[in-house]
Amino acid sequence: MSQTALAFAADHRRENLEHLSDFLRIPSVSTQAMHRPDIDRAAAWLVSRLQEAGLEHAQAMPTAGHPIVYAEWTGHGEKAPTLLIYGHYDVQPTDPEEEWLSPPFEPTIRAGNVYARGASDDKGQLYTHIAAVEAFFRAGRQPPVNVKFIVEGEEEIGSPNLGFFIQQQAKRLACDTALISDTAMLNADTPAIIYGVRGLSYAEIEIRGPKSDLHSGSYGGVAPNPLQAAVEILAALHDEQGRVTIPGFYDKVRPLSEKERDSLARVPFDAQRFLREEIRAPALWSGEAGYTPLERISARPTLEIHGIAGGYTGEGGKTVIPARATIKLSMRLVPDQAPLEVFELLEQYVQQLAPPTVKVVTRLLSHADAAVIDQDTPAMRAAVRAYRNGFGAEPLFLRSGGTLPVVTILYKNLHTPVVLMGFGLPDDNLHAPNEKLYLENFYRGVDTSIYFMDELAQMP
Amino acid sequence: MSQTALAFAADHRRENLEHLSDFLRIPSVSTQAMHRPDIDRAAAWLVSRLQEAGLEHAQAMPTAGHPIVYAEWTGHGEKAPTLLIYGHYDVQPTDPEEEWLSPPFEPTIRAGNVYARGASDDKGQLYTHIAAVEAFFRAGRQPPVNVKFIVEGEEEIGSPNLGFFIQQQAKRLACDTALISDTAMLNADTPAIIYGVRGLSYAEIEIRGPKSDLHSGSYGGVAPNPLQAAVEILAALHDEQGRVTIPGFYDKVRPLSEKERDSLARVPFDAQRFLREEIRAPALWSGEAGYTPLERISARPTLEIHGIAGGYTGEGGKTVIPARATIKLSMRLVPDQAPLEVFELLEQYVQQLAPPTVKVVTRLLSHADAAVIDQDTPAMRAAVRAYRNGFGAEPLFLRSGGTLPVVTILYKNLHTPVVLMGFGLPDDNLHAPNEKLYLENFYRGVDTSIYFMDELAQMP
Repeated sequence: MSQTALAFAADHRRENLEHLSDFLRIPSVSTQAMHRPDIDRAAAWLVSRLQEAGLEHAQAMPTAGHPIVYAEWTGHGEKAPTLLIYGHYDVQPTDPEEEWLSPPFEPTIRAGNVYARGASDDKGQLYTHIAAVEAFFRAGRQPPVNVKFIVEGEEEIGSPNLGFFIQQQAKRLACDTALISDTAMLNADTPAIIYGVRGLSYAEIEIRGPKSDLHSGSYGGVAPNPLQAAVEILAALHDEQGRVTIPGFYDKVRPLSEKERDSLARVPFDAQRFLREEIRAPALWSGEAGYTPLERISARPTLEIHGIAGGYTGEGGKTVIPARATIKLSMRLVPDQAPLEVFELLEQYVQQLAPPTVKVVTRLLSHADAAVIDQDTPAMRAAVRAYRNGFGAEPLFLRSGGTLPVVTILYKNLHTPVVLMGFGLPDDNLHAPNEKLYLENFYRGVDTSIYFMDELAQMP
Repeated sequence: MSQTALAFAADHRRENLEHLSDFLRIPSVSTQAMHRPDIDRAAAWLVSRLQEAGLEHAQAMPTAGHPIVYAEWTGHGEKAPTLLIYGHYDVQPTDPEEEWLSPPFEPTIRAGNVYARGASDDKGQLYTHIAAVEAFFRAGRQPPVNVKFIVEGEEEIGSPNLGFFIQQQAKRLACDTALISDTAMLNADTPAIIYGVRGLSYAEIEIRGPKSDLHSGSYGGVAPNPLQAAVEILAALHDEQGRVTIPGFYDKVRPLSEKERDSLARVPFDAQRFLREEIRAPALWSGEAGYTPLERISARPTLEIHGIAGGYTGEGGKTVIPARATIKLSMRLVPDQAPLEVFELLEQYVQQLAPPTVKVVTRLLSHADAAVIDQDTPAMRAAVRAYRNGFGAEPLFLRSGGTLPVVTILYKNLHTPVVLMGFGLPDDNLHAPNEKLYLENFYRGVDTSIYFMDELAQMP
């Protein structure tokens, strides 16, 4: 039944790539206010593309933040199940810009990959499903299921308005299965269905010492240095076993079952290859004692420093004691850690660690819930079969170290099972310079989406 | 004998301030390559101003770095002593620019001060002596001593070429006394003669982890984070007593004698006022245990972090594990610590502290020797009398926490005693936003310079 759609997709790879490239050219960075017009451009582009692809009621719906794009085709009515496809059209910032081999918003093909910010996260992965639906329509048929798209523009800032939106629009969004492609496969030959995502608490800590910058020659030795306070506080957040020292941090962590540890141990994850080919550092960080590298990057909570601002970092030297230092850090969380609660534990501990010579303010910048999804559902089985057909390979079940707040939001508001069917690769350089999408995965992704809709239509 | 020169200076305050303002308008920042043309402009401006003031052979002499401006008037030949006046025409960078109340290179008068980068450090203090010499000439007389000016453009980057230049030009620069005004008084009513300056080792530590920036969702827990390594290394450089932990750091420190500690204890230095009015932080840093605040800022060695670059510090959040972190820090040194030796101690200790997951390179950006000067010389006594006349107050003898490499360089190459006669104030915001010079000190400085030349001419 899907053969004509597959044939259409095979004949229109070039066109699909051109559409994706147009999408990638829009610098829809959600974390930076200057890009707000680009956010609106990306939403408008999507609305018109979804319409052209054959969907109905395509529109950019306002929220308190960036608009959410919605479109649907519900021609089967109650005779067929409804699939809700979620994606996001916003992207991460591009700094350090000078490390990009080609400009981040000029999609460039090199060695079978398309390089651009958002290529994998998430414009490229999202686009596979638009192309799949279009293939059904333009091959002269209808998709075998009802289809709804919901595409947000605030995923990279923690989806602050998505929950309220979905709650308000629950009736319109009603569905039998939700599908998200915003994750990675194990490698190009091994697809993966993600059944767990980590949560997040992203914090900014501002440390204020002297009222203005001071000269270390005149004040060094007595003036409190906020950078000194920053390194003391930050160094104290891990112990020598790589454990986070925030009191209570691990209290709500659901322990990994023996069954799950066994299953993760059987994943052909080669930590040394991971170090050599992806991380490319002198050695792996030993991390939290007692856990394997695969557990540490996906199933255990972590704390990372993302940036420290303050003082002089330009060319040459400047002997300044800065008035202020600002830290950015985040904690990756697992069930059943609550992001707000963990943030409060951090805030209290930072106050306790801070010397009396400085003032410290800790702010929560964004947060997301962790989730673990049941692997044994009809939709999951449909996804396994779709991957077998699309990629000719058996997918693994993996947990992701990343965050997808939408998983919990969909589950809470629509009571719908979520399938995380990723087409990215681990070395796609998400959030880093030279983000890319493997084109073979893009084309196979379109096919897999077509197969998945077919499988869903046959679900009991 | 100096009365006509003093009268001339009193009548030409406005003209002197206008000349200084022209000088301050040139953004001669020595640490930033983009300002190289401004460096040359500042040197050329000085050459022509020194000529107009009555000096001879004024010229910008090339070095391996920025030119050194030289001028002289030796009309007395061997019948009078020769005074060598040192200053510097380069200035510090201006960031954070947004904290300046008026633009750093548009001199602005507020509440009896002139605000501009370099107003106090060192263009304004240097200019007092140019105005003094000009006053003698234009009042129809000659200065009572032979005068030579040497003004460099690399003081703020550690005077890397000054030593070689002075060594090469030792004959031309031969003098009986050297005078430098690049230091601060205790307060507006209490002049100070600085008899000690701290040395400096300024280092940059580069920490490299992953080959490129990584997403903490995919790699957090196993990828080495260079910022984490940075805070661990930096936090370990002080112990809980505020002492620097680098092995051997204090080995060569000449202990403070009881006599000197007694004398420093008698200085009317109010640490609480210093905190309240200058540092303006919640509390003083307790610093190195066992020493008073005045000792810690001037007579004891310190280590300060000046900046940490790497990761994301822009608006909002970015969940990046950066490929690289770069630290800027400096150590203020006292006799007999050797800057290169102390740098090597730091380098070794940092290597020892660095985790095996990262590569660390430590570079020396600049260095300077510490010095202590004999207080009991004819030139020092002349300076005391000049201050009495110029400021109507008895000067204190103090040690400065800052660096003046030229002190050691002059002593080593010309075997000349150096007088550090400062006209700055402790709250001049050196190296910080809103640098200023108190105009009353500027005018009194001109008078004091005139008195000092008179006193020198009468030296036995």
